[in-house]
This record gives sequence, C-alpha cells and structure tokens, in this order.
Amino acid sequence: MTKQALRLGVAGLGTVGGGLVRLLATHRDRLALRIGRPIEITAVCARDPNKDRGLGNALGSATWYADPVAMAADPAVDVMVELIGGETVAKAAVEAALSKGKPVVTANKALLAHHGVALSRMAEAAGVALNFEAAVAGGIPVVKALREGLSGNRIEAVYGILNGTSNYILTDMAARGASFESVLAEAQALGYAEADPSFDVDGIDAAHKLTLLASLAFGVAVDFDSVPVEGIRGVSAQDIAFARELGFRIKLVGIARMTGEGLDIRVHPVMVAEGSALAHVDGVFNGVVVQGDFVDQMVFEGRGAGAGPTASAVMADIVDIALGLKLPLFGVPTETLVPAKVAPVTARVGACYLRLSVVDRPGVIADIAAILRDERVSIESLLQRGRAPGEAVPVVIVTHEVAEAAMVAALTRIGNLPSVLEPPTMIRIEEIKRA
Amino acid sequence: MTKQALRLGVAGLGTVGGGLVRLLATHRDRLALRIGRPIEITAVCARDPNKDRGLGNALGSATWYADPVAMAADPAVDVMVELIGGETVAKAAVEAALSKGKPVVTANKALLAHHGVALSRMAEAAGVALNFEAAVAGGIPVVKALREGLSGNRIEAVYGILNGTSNYILTDMAARGASFESVLAEAQALGYAEADPSFDVDGIDAAHKLTLLASLAFGVAVDFDSVPVEGIRGVSAQDIAFARELGFRIKLVGIARMTGEGLDIRVHPVMVAEGSALAHVDGVFNGVVVQGDFVDQMVFEGRGAGAGPTASAVMADIVDIALGLKLPLFGVPTETLVPAKVAPVTARVGACYLRLSVVDRPGVIADIAAILRDERVSIESLLQRGRAPGEAVPVVIVTHEVAEAAMVAALTRIGNLPSVLEPPTMIRIEEIKRA
Repeated sequence: MTKQALRLGVAGLGTVGGGLVRLLATHRDRLALRIGRPIEITAVCARDPNKDRGLGNALGSATWYADPVAMAADPAVDVMVELIGGETVAKAAVEAALSKGKPVVTANKALLAHHGVALSRMAEAAGVALNFEAAVAGGIPVVKALREGLSGNRIEAVYGILNGTSNYILTDMAARGASFESVLAEAQALGYAEADPSFDVDGIDAAHKLTLLASLAFGVAVDFDSVPVEGIRGVSAQDIAFARELGFRIKLVGIARMTGEGLDIRVHPVMVAEGSALAHVDGVFNGVVVQGDFVDQMVFEGRGAGAGPTASAVMADIVDIALGLKLPLFGVPTETLVPAKVAPVTARVGACYLRLSVVDRPGVIADIAAILRDERVSIESLLQRGRAPGEAVPVVIVTHEVAEAAMVAALTRIGNLPSVLEPPTMIRIEEIKRA
Repeated sequence: MTKQALRLGVAGLGTVGGGLVRLLATHRDRLALRIGRPIEITAVCARDPNKDRGLGNALGSATWYADPVAMAADPAVDVMVELIGGETVAKAAVEAALSKGKPVVTANKALLAHHGVALSRMAEAAGVALNFEAAVAGGIPVVKALREGLSGNRIEAVYGILNGTSNYILTDMAARGASFESVLAEAQALGYAEADPSFDVDGIDAAHKLTLLASLAFGVAVDFDSVPVEGIRGVSAQDIAFARELGFRIKLVGIARMTGEGLDIRVHPVMVAEGSALAHVDGVFNGVVVQGDFVDQMVFEGRGAGAGPTASAVMADIVDIALGLKLPLFGVPTETLVPAKVAPVTARVGACYLRLSVVDRPGVIADIAAILRDERVSIESLLQRGRAPGEAVPVVIVTHEVAEAAMVAALTRIGNLPSVLEPPTMIRIEEIKRA
C-alpha cells in the first residue's frame, strides 16, 4: 500500500526555502521511512520563477505562484510552509491557509511575536497545527523542548542568546579588541549582517524570539511593544576588555522570568560569569538556558540561523504534522493564555558594571563613592586604570545587588559631576546558575 | 465536558517513582490544561506498601500490587510506567502491558539496550507507544530531539557524557587532585555512587544509553555485547593534571559515528580540548553533542539523573501518549532497523595521550622514540617532568593521528623496555568540533 504523499506549498524560496528544498531532495527516502509516506513540494511561491536558485530540477513539476494566498487555496497543497518573512504578505498567506483548514509551518518570529495569539486562535478553530520551531533559535529544537519535552515542569526562567549576528559581532569584538562599527562593517561585507542591521544589533529580532519563548514557558500572551529592548551598539571594546578582566563575558541576552512583580522580560547586553552556561556560546551560535522546577537547568546550544539549521527545524515541524501531532501554538489552549503584566526594568534588582570616564585628579573617586553611598549602591570592586594627571581615565565599578531605580538615580547624579567626562556606561550583571 | 482521566499504573516507587508521584501532585492542573484531561495514578506496584516514602496521601486510593504483571492487567490502568529497573521483572511487566495493548513509559536503559528491538516489535504489533526519554541522559529531552526535533537530518555522530556518577568523580578528582579511590569512597558516603559502583564507573550504564542513542541516530540494531567499553578506574590524578596542562579535560565519553568500517561505537575515558562542547559539562551533569548534516552541531546539557529530572522526562513521555503521539521505539519501523556492524576499536585513527613511568637515565627517551618511529607513530609533543637520576619519572607524549593498531603495537614494545617501570597509560584524544 502506497500512502498518498504529504504535499507542501512553500512560500518563499530565499535562504531558508532553498535549504528546505535541498533537505527534502537529500532525505526524501529517509523521511518517507520515518513518516510512512513521501513528502512532496507541489507548489512554490516566489517573485521571480526564472531566477537561478541553484536548485536544479529539485522543484520538479511544482506549480509556481506569485501570490501565496492563491497558493494556499490550491487543492494540491496539504501544508503551507511560510518562509516569506515580514508581517503583511506572510500574515495573509498564513491566514489563508488556516482558513482553508490547512496546517502551517512558519519560520516567522516577527509575525508570531505580534500576531501569535490571534493566529493561535485561528489555528485552534481550524483544528490544525501552526508550527514554528524555526522561528526561535534556528536549528535548536527548543520550541519542542518547551512545548513537549519539559511539559512536566513549571518553567521558572528562560535565558537566551537568540541572535547570531549580534553574538558574532560581540565575539569578534572580544577576539580582536575591535570596535562595534568596524566589526559590523566587516560582518556586512561577509554577509553575516544585513545592510540595515538594526533588527539584529538593536535587539528586536532577539526580542521577537524571547516573546515566543516566554509565551511557551509561562502560558502568557505578551504585548511585544511592552518588552524592554536594548541592543549592542553601546558596547565598547573597552567594556569587553574590562569584563574579561573581571571574569565576565558580554552577551546580548534575552531574559524571561516570572516574578512577584509580573513577567520580567527584557533584551539587553548582559555580563555573564566566565563559567556560566551562556559564556561560551560564541560566534553565530545560539544558546538557550531553561530553568524548570523538576528538571533544574537545561542548556541548548546550536546554530541559530542559516539555510541548513533552519531547514532542519522547518522539516521537523512538517514531520510532526505528518505524524498527526497537533498542539496549540503555545502548548496550551489559546483561551487560557494569561495577558502578561510586564514588569518595568526599573523593578530589576541585580549587580551592575559601571564604567566612567573621569578626570584623573584627587577627590573624584570620593565624590562618586559619596553619591553611591547616598543612593545605597554598594560597591563590590573598583578599578582605576592608568595615571594621567588632569586627563581622562576610565574608572570601573562592579556593584553588589542594587535596585535599578537607585542605580539610575546614582548614575544621573554621577553623570552630572564636572569631573565625569562622558555619560556613564552601565551593563547589568546576570547570574545564570551554572549547570 | 469532562474527559476521562488518563490512568497510570506505576511500577516501582523508588527515587524516580517517588519523583513522578510528587511531580503529578504538584502539576496536576497544569498538565490537565495541557492535555485536556486529568492524569491519575490508579495503581502502584512496590514490594512494601507500608514503607514511608514521604509521599503523604499523594497516592490516594490507588490499588497496590506486589506483582507488576498483575498490575498491567488491571482494567483501571491505561498506561504502564515501568520504574523498577533491571531486566527480569521489568521485562515481564513491560511485555505484559504491551500484550494487553497498553502503552508503556520506561526509564530502563539496561532493558532497552538488551531487548529494545524485540520490545519495539511488540509495541509496534500492539500499535502502542513505548517511550523511554528518561532512560537516556535523565531530564534532557534528547530522545525526543533525535526522534523528532532533528528528524530532517542524517546524523553523523553522537558524543555524550552519559553517566553522572563517573562525571562527578572525574570532576572532583580534577578539582581536588585526588585519586579515583578516595573520591569514589566519598561519593559513596554522599550517596552519589552506589555501594557496588561498577555499572557507573566501568562504563556499562553509559554504554546502555549510548546504544539507545546509536539506534535512534542511525536506525540500527546494536548488539550490546559488541560495544567496546572501558571505565574510569584507570584514570589517575596525575593524568588529569597533565591533561589540564596540555589544554584538555578527561571525561568518560560515549561515541557513536557511522564510518566506512561500520558503526564506530565505544565508551572510554577521552581527552577533550578545553574549549570543546563537552569539556565544561561537570559534576553530575550530562551532555550530549549531536552532529547532523543540516543542523550541524547541537549541544544539550542538563541533569542526567535524580528524582526531579528523571520524573520530568517520564512525565513528558506520558504527556506524549496523552496527546496521541505514537512513534516507533527508535523512530523508524522495527523491520527497517539495520543490524549494526560494530567497528573494532582497533579501526580507530586518532591522536593519543601516553604516560610512561621511566627510569631517569640517558637514552630512555631515544629508545621510546625509536619504537614510535618504527611503528609510524608521530609525536606531537613530549613532556618529561622532574629530574631524579636513576629513579622513576613520568614522561608524557601526545601523538598525532595514529592507527590504533600501530599504537597498541608500539605500547606493547614500549612496555617491555626495561627502563619502563609500569604498563603505559593511553588515553584517546577526540576532537569534538566546537560549537
């Protein structure tokens, strides 16, 4: 008995779409063995059907569409694979497929971070899966881990290095002692960073992914616009060097924790201790730490982007659909998602790294120390490097745990001292319990 | 509409069984929300029903059985959870449940390493799931990752630190410069090691788990008795210290790779480079590296044992059954499993660390170097530490890649030199590409 093929309509033939076509061509038999029937691409959607994508005749007799909404309606398409990106055409395509009762696989974090709850409701009403493993941390099966593998836990916290481009830049800055600007320019030349890098380096992409992880981990609906986000443009080679000297690495980390104040969710540069779980996730790799009440700490590391890893995740979602697995988008019925009360960053209590550029003259440190004392910020260590009487020298301070509001108040006052020459730099230190 | 509960029969109320009871008591509502119906323990099986297990009244009105086979027949049991361990009673219990058409969840690696293929066939014939996430790497959802999350890949290699006890011992030996014997004794006193530690420290437990990972990764049936296994009794504090000096850590690693010679599968102490993925998996933690053709390198780290993490994995398997997910034991139909041709360790080609205890007198190194030259073993570095003319001093050699057979031949000859005082120590160096 030959079972009927599972027929895919693939919208978007860029890097990920091309990777998926190649993966299927490479592993057609292996996958058929696994799911008991072949998988075929019966329709594709891309702007220019004549462009050479290096896919040879891997697309065979697939029907070409210019409009993914039209493709969704093709009766020869069982599953819509949305790899277009963005929130307009992609949204229309996903909605069209769901409204036809067809399951959808997407790699689109922006779409789900903004419209996940509504789409979850649609998929649920249609009784079909809307899978998005590839939308978070590329090839790492962390959506599956949170939705299934760790389902017996109350998740306490999720920490992630979720953007490969910014992690590559920070890693390269550290390796070469180079500035953000010069490393970014080189990453752009090498194709590791986009011409407009803001989604990556300003933390927006990481925040999209973190929002999805938070919904999965805590069963909450998150208003994306309420998530505090700060990127890596302000991280200097000097801060990276001082961090190293103090036993830390600087990473762009997404943090999501349930606290008494609400959902503590934020993306910003973080100093993590040398030996901690995320410290050695370098280059384009992503890493996710999940803290669960029964499992304790779990760490996942892998490639967060690229054709192969992303296609791997997309295919896993397709295989799940072929096997009949059908879970709500965020693991629980949409109606039970609780709107998250996002805690303000000012509610944070934690250690901080401060770097000040001060005039090297007697009494400056005393002035700074007095302000910190007044604002009840306790100093753990202080470094003053180089001597250049009358000129600018860096002063680095690591604080004990401090309320963010007090820290901000102190920094405002310190920044106003005449002997402090530049706005102070502050990087939060987060303790991620070591595996 | 209240759906009928999913009713569990739990065989074995030791550490893991107790953990499962506690997990269910803690997360009853959370789990019911996830799967749409409650989970209940309706039957339990343990030798002494009157023993105080600290479970309060969490077991409610569950029926007590002395015989798990009888429990499997209880019509009030939908799913058998086998947490007895061993291969006799446990096997009978699993078979009884499968023969009644009931799905089974087990944490029993020994059972599956020896009888996995036969049990897979039984489960398949019965059309039910036989899930075993907890049998490999405790709380880490690596079975799910290989069976589902990475299903779009040809897996090229799996490397794992799979036994928490031996990893704890090696980590503690490194931290304190202590001997295997003294650390083992302390671990036994602390309850981290069994009174008879051989399953753990001789690599058998790790080999059970590795065998299961190999079947999942490569779709092969492995004859457990053909897997080369060497434990950590021969690792000395001196070797750990030299390893550190050379930029390595010594870990008990399970390796499984498909090669031209067949399945390269083995468990033994390995020197891994400082910066590589498994080097910092310390203490009781487990770590698994999976290399796939599309996803590239994936690393998973977490607690490999203990009540909480293991119960987390058992519950994930139960949830999968509740959600209707039903996969073959090793991800592919049993009949398609290919009997693995296990490559002999002598087929290995790789670098080695050698430590010799030699008499400190002129010409000794020349004799050793001549033998290595004759056997075509190329030296990468050589350390001779301490001077004590006429007495024993250690000589440490790191080789370039060398055929195992040549290495063994050279070591036999070297061991026979009159100036070499003890049988040479050899530890294989494995390069696990860094994430």
